[in-house]
Amino acid sequence: MPTESVRKLRMGMVGGGQGAFIGAVHRMAAALDGQIEFVAGALSSTRERALASGRALGLEERRNYGSWEEMLERELSLPASERIDFVSVVTPNHMHYPVARAFAEAGIHVVCDKPLVHSSAQAADLLDTAARSGVVFAVTYNYTGYPMVRQAREMVRSGQLGEIRKVIVEYHQGWLATHLEAQGNKQADWRTDPARSGIAGAVGDIGSHAENLVSTVTGLELEAICAELTTFVPGRQLDDDASLLLRFSGGARGVLMCSQIEIGGENDLRLRVFGTRGSLSWRQEDPNELHFYPLEGPEQVLRRAGGYLGPAAARATRLPSGHPEAFLEAFANVYLGAAAAIRARQEGRTPEAGEADYPTLEDGARGVHFIEKTVESARSETKWTDARWRRPQPVR
Amino acid sequence: MPTESVRKLRMGMVGGGQGAFIGAVHRMAAALDGQIEFVAGALSSTRERALASGRALGLEERRNYGSWEEMLERELSLPASERIDFVSVVTPNHMHYPVARAFAEAGIHVVCDKPLVHSSAQAADLLDTAARSGVVFAVTYNYTGYPMVRQAREMVRSGQLGEIRKVIVEYHQGWLATHLEAQGNKQADWRTDPARSGIAGAVGDIGSHAENLVSTVTGLELEAICAELTTFVPGRQLDDDASLLLRFSGGARGVLMCSQIEIGGENDLRLRVFGTRGSLSWRQEDPNELHFYPLEGPEQVLRRAGGYLGPAAARATRLPSGHPEAFLEAFANVYLGAAAAIRARQEGRTPEAGEADYPTLEDGARGVHFIEKTVESARSETKWTDARWRRPQPVR
Amino acid sequence: MPTESVRKLRMGMVGGGQGAFIGAVHRMAAALDGQIEFVAGALSSTRERALASGRALGLEERRNYGSWEEMLERELSLPASERIDFVSVVTPNHMHYPVARAFAEAGIHVVCDKPLVHSSAQAADLLDTAARSGVVFAVTYNYTGYPMVRQAREMVRSGQLGEIRKVIVEYHQGWLATHLEAQGNKQADWRTDPARSGIAGAVGDIGSHAENLVSTVTGLELEAICAELTTFVPGRQLDDDASLLLRFSGGARGVLMCSQIEIGGENDLRLRVFGTRGSLSWRQEDPNELHFYPLEGPEQVLRRAGGYLGPAAARATRLPSGHPEAFLEAFANVYLGAAAAIRARQEGRTPEAGEADYPTLEDGARGVHFIEKTVESARSETKWTDARWRRPQPVR
Amino acid sequence: MPTESVRKLRMGMVGGGQGAFIGAVHRMAAALDGQIEFVAGALSSTRERALASGRALGLEERRNYGSWEEMLERELSLPASERIDFVSVVTPNHMHYPVARAFAEAGIHVVCDKPLVHSSAQAADLLDTAARSGVVFAVTYNYTGYPMVRQAREMVRSGQLGEIRKVIVEYHQGWLATHLEAQGNKQADWRTDPARSGIAGAVGDIGSHAENLVSTVTGLELEAICAELTTFVPGRQLDDDASLLLRFSGGARGVLMCSQIEIGGENDLRLRVFGTRGSLSWRQEDPNELHFYPLEGPEQVLRRAGGYLGPAAARATRLPSGHPEAFLEAFANVYLGAAAAIRARQEGRTPEAGEADYPTLEDGARGVHFIEKTVESARSETKWTDARWRRPQPVR
Repeated sequence: MPTESVRKLRMGMVGGGQGAFIGAVHRMAAALDGQIEFVAGALSSTRERALASGRALGLEERRNYGSWEEMLERELSLPASERIDFVSVVTPNHMHYPVARAFAEAGIHVVCDKPLVHSSAQAADLLDTAARSGVVFAVTYNYTGYPMVRQAREMVRSGQLGEIRKVIVEYHQGWLATHLEAQGNKQADWRTDPARSGIAGAVGDIGSHAENLVSTVTGLELEAICAELTTFVPGRQLDDDASLLLRFSGGARGVLMCSQIEIGGENDLRLRVFGTRGSLSWRQEDPNELHFYPLEGPEQVLRRAGGYLGPAAARATRLPSGHPEAFLEAFANVYLGAAAAIRARQEGRTPEAGEADYPTLEDGARGVHFIEKTVESARSETKWTDARWRRPQPVR
Repeated sequence: MPTESVRKLRMGMVGGGQGAFIGAVHRMAAALDGQIEFVAGALSSTRERALASGRALGLEERRNYGSWEEMLERELSLPASERIDFVSVVTPNHMHYPVARAFAEAGIHVVCDKPLVHSSAQAADLLDTAARSGVVFAVTYNYTGYPMVRQAREMVRSGQLGEIRKVIVEYHQGWLATHLEAQGNKQADWRTDPARSGIAGAVGDIGSHAENLVSTVTGLELEAICAELTTFVPGRQLDDDASLLLRFSGGARGVLMCSQIEIGGENDLRLRVFGTRGSLSWRQEDPNELHFYPLEGPEQVLRRAGGYLGPAAARATRLPSGHPEAFLEAFANVYLGAAAAIRARQEGRTPEAGEADYPTLEDGARGVHFIEKTVESARSETKWTDARWRRPQPVR
Repeated sequence: MPTESVRKLRMGMVGGGQGAFIGAVHRMAAALDGQIEFVAGALSSTRERALASGRALGLEERRNYGSWEEMLERELSLPASERIDFVSVVTPNHMHYPVARAFAEAGIHVVCDKPLVHSSAQAADLLDTAARSGVVFAVTYNYTGYPMVRQAREMVRSGQLGEIRKVIVEYHQGWLATHLEAQGNKQADWRTDPARSGIAGAVGDIGSHAENLVSTVTGLELEAICAELTTFVPGRQLDDDASLLLRFSGGARGVLMCSQIEIGGENDLRLRVFGTRGSLSWRQEDPNELHFYPLEGPEQVLRRAGGYLGPAAARATRLPSGHPEAFLEAFANVYLGAAAAIRARQEGRTPEAGEADYPTLEDGARGVHFIEKTVESARSETKWTDARWRRPQPVR
Repeated sequence: MPTESVRKLRMGMVGGGQGAFIGAVHRMAAALDGQIEFVAGALSSTRERALASGRALGLEERRNYGSWEEMLERELSLPASERIDFVSVVTPNHMHYPVARAFAEAGIHVVCDKPLVHSSAQAADLLDTAARSGVVFAVTYNYTGYPMVRQAREMVRSGQLGEIRKVIVEYHQGWLATHLEAQGNKQADWRTDPARSGIAGAVGDIGSHAENLVSTVTGLELEAICAELTTFVPGRQLDDDASLLLRFSGGARGVLMCSQIEIGGENDLRLRVFGTRGSLSWRQEDPNELHFYPLEGPEQVLRRAGGYLGPAAARATRLPSGHPEAFLEAFANVYLGAAAAIRARQEGRTPEAGEADYPTLEDGARGVHFIEKTVESARSETKWTDARWRRPQPVR
């Protein structure tokens, strides 16, 4: 249960104005625990829409900005006691890089939506920038904020499943089963547009969540992939379906599936992990349960807030068992983790174990690499494409 | 999706300090949509704990009160533009009546936890008080805030199930299966103490939710009940298990079960409604689904945010389908409904249809009556106890 | 897994001809394990239909009888090495008594469908008859044949749940939600006709299964009941819905619900048992699973053929786990149990522990008593009706 | 509901003696509907075990054979009115070919377990043999016998899902997660031995079911595959895990997974089919349900014996809804289909539409081809391996 007795951090937001979906989610998630207040914004790419959005949300006039550049400049001119502590970047993907880079460069902490950026070169530059400026940089792979995902991570990492042999991760959606982007749907529009979304469609939008979920829970390192990308809807510019075979260092194997044309799929992210001593199964649409299958004995259904769970799950939990928590709370846990890291940084100390639990810039960079390798593999006639990721060397 | 472009209402809170569970829930729920700010509190029954709790939560010193009486007096002395718009009463049950009555009498709107009060006489007095002072008075039967409960209500009330024949409502918990109140558990302590909890244990704590859920969804009027109350745990002072046969005006029948000693039960509230043309089934621990069984054709699984849902469910929804919402969002919907009613009252207008959707003082009074009649029936050797509720006549 | 290396028993059948449902089930169940062969029948109440039915099923002409009286007479005239070993009585309820009595009196073992007979007087007479003639007499409460029901029985009886506090048993059907008996439906016709079905409708047809399931699994003795019977469908002669509060000797409490007007209900028999140390939950439509909730630790999902199950479940299992078994196998287990008892009787020995596992004539007699007491309670204005059953004293 | 008024077919069996699993299943399935009697057998590979097995099962001495060759010779010497109508081949895989070929050559109809044979050359020879001799030849891909699989087939083939875009088929088992074949487990022993099982392990044993399920339901033709085969358990000779990307003619895509090392997996065969107008989902361990997701409107849960199902499902159903059917009934449906075909052949007529519904020798041959191509692909460094199957040209 998050404690509430802390100084509120001041959040600025770029993107997330009228008509956006994810911006409102970020604001609710950030506000949930009373640790963060939303004080400034440049909420849309056009000045007029940005200002109207900020007004509708009750931003103070003087901190309701017409552009992110203006916001950065003006916030830097404020005394540290007023200035935003961090910026939340919730624009379409193509704007993540310039915005995040500028704020990080200026020493303002960053929470950025995923996928991080359009290319590994951009990701390397951000890693370099953040290292130099010393900012906290979180990437909102929000599904890792679920308590039962953290329980899964703890069980896998502590060896309760034995050696991991196999992983199956799936992400099924159906909302793009028709040519929605041709019908004025704002979400469909930018997500299927290479200029704003990047080189991949479904793979970037949801496949990257799947990759991160596997990586977070298992710690396994991707070694090689074999990808099939398909665009099923005529006229669409990016893939809307992907299936991948995975090879991990050490011999584990896996399958990753993601699709946005599977009718009936709402937001159906699932993970199964199979080890030599047991298996786990989790599903985002039923997030309060984690199924554990030991080698001997019956299946166990672990439930959020159960007294038998480990500390990582317990820390991520707000309500008693049976009082279901869901998407927003998981998202809020990412903000709580980032906020804890920011506070520790401000206090000049290293966070304690488990205190600052959030997906990092490295997670984001590895995700970009995964997207690039998936597209490369899909175009290749060779079965396996090397997919190992190495943290880039600092520029100097 | 709640709009955010409204003046924030100022909330004061009585109860909900350190060690409490439901106070934090109320604060998160109230804060979720950015329409309410928590500005004042008298958070505990002892001055010292109250002040410490308020400090921990970051209340301004001058509005962090040592007692509710002090809070009432001081808030009334503030200009209307600063004064709290409403008070949220989240104390143990026995304090609901004096606190709610005093604030209502003073013209301050009230949101009060359930069960409303200890007796029908108190409830009648509150109805009278609220009518005289003209305040909005909401009772946090939070489970009626779920979108799929509102969908069920709409389907039943619009006749999609035909005439209602039968209702089964269940509320299974197991947390009191042992003598927890003897082991220093604060929640168990007051809930099993007649002085603070009232004349009923499980029936008051969770049976009242079950009664309200049936009433809200079906609009059926209880005519007679036949109740069996049991105290299974040795040494416990109140019932921890109840089973009731129900008769409704017009001939419908029902069963209501609630228990706090059913091991494995977490917060397992379920409702089934059977009509001449179809049936519905809903479960709180899986709140995003509503199962509809038409007389002809296969079962349909209605899901939150589905395009086929009615306006009541749609209005109560924040996130796209597949992005699960849960307990907090439902709770927040009760606050949104009360806030809309308060604003309308402040603006001197009647809320539009569907605008102010929340459980009312009458719901609370009917719930108190239900608890009294259940206890009366349990002591009776006659099978049926009249359980009809009539709104009390105003005192003058 | 039933062994197949035994002499086949010869089965005669009364009832179950063309248009019947349950007769075919009995024949498939009896045949499943290759231990029983169907050699004689009087399959319908009219000579012509009986003979046509037997021909359609390939009965030998000389053992395809026009009436049960003829069958009894002629079979008795055959040498013991040819004569039927037992008769299966699958007629509408009103014929159970005369047929079963005559065969039992003649020393032919009996398998009889439920509810056993129309009155406790008839039941007492059958008990007396069977005791005198020494026949095996099984009653096809088929749901107790499920492996996971037998596992539940073993867990409860061995104390794994501690002391039993509470039982909830439910049986939901919807097929009689309309006036089907007025539309020529043969099953609905006799089941809603007091002359053939007896004094109760839903209670006799399915409530009796619910009562037996509780009794079988828990061994608890009913002490008192409080029943509400309703006939929802206009024009119907018997109850189509029942709800009962239950009191058991020793202080346990319960609820029994059964209905045939709950649209969406197919054959939804469920049992939940709550003890001081844990709980169990089972559902007939998902029969291969048994949910166990220990006081400490997570829920366990026990599955048929799991290596961790006890001997009673193991003996009742034919297929490996994951190869689902269902209704027919459970029904066949009742036949296997009866067949084992018959063989032991023929061999002049007492069956070994667990060898002859089947619902007995006493189960049937107790079920008749339950039906009578339910009807009595439903007519009473007193809350509790004594429902204790005592084995009748032998007539001489 | 299968009619019972037909001449019983006489079945001989090769394999399935003591210690075997699948033989008993075949016998129960064949017996279930009273249309087939088991009259002859050569039940084991050693004379002594064969005879002992037959005796235990009550075979007549003169038709309890010590070898299949003896059985074939002696049965052919019997008059047609006594001779077996068909042979059921339930040996380990390596014996399918010689036995099936010899009986087919002799004009005796064949029901053969899967995978059909070890090589496409053998399959081609069987096709040729059966064509010449005119026998009916069924392959027991038993999962296609489930009513809801037949419903799925009907819905897909009739266009209710629109054009099929994507298929996901999975088969999860965990029983080989340890080195069971080294511990004397008979089932594990032969299934992991290339000499008896063939060139593939999991792919042959269960992957072939998955391939057949897709083919049966969708009618899609495999065009190319990309396979990853893994042997996780040290010391094992064959694959115990497989993942495949699939390309179908016409542009549909798919994923096939099968594994025998996934702890917790019992017999978890699942199929999902996604079209342009809707999707279907089915799971073998919950076989009475089929989930249909139309492009518009809520999910529908179709249930066995529902009045809204098509004729193929209805014909495959024995019991009313809610009375679950399972593995044995599905298996029996394959026998019923083969029996209908045999009778029609014996009567010199073509079966009516839907009368003889069973997996054919072509299904079996295509399955062998699939196994070969999977192994070929797994060894290839090229991504795609051509997997198109063409019915072999007759030898002359």
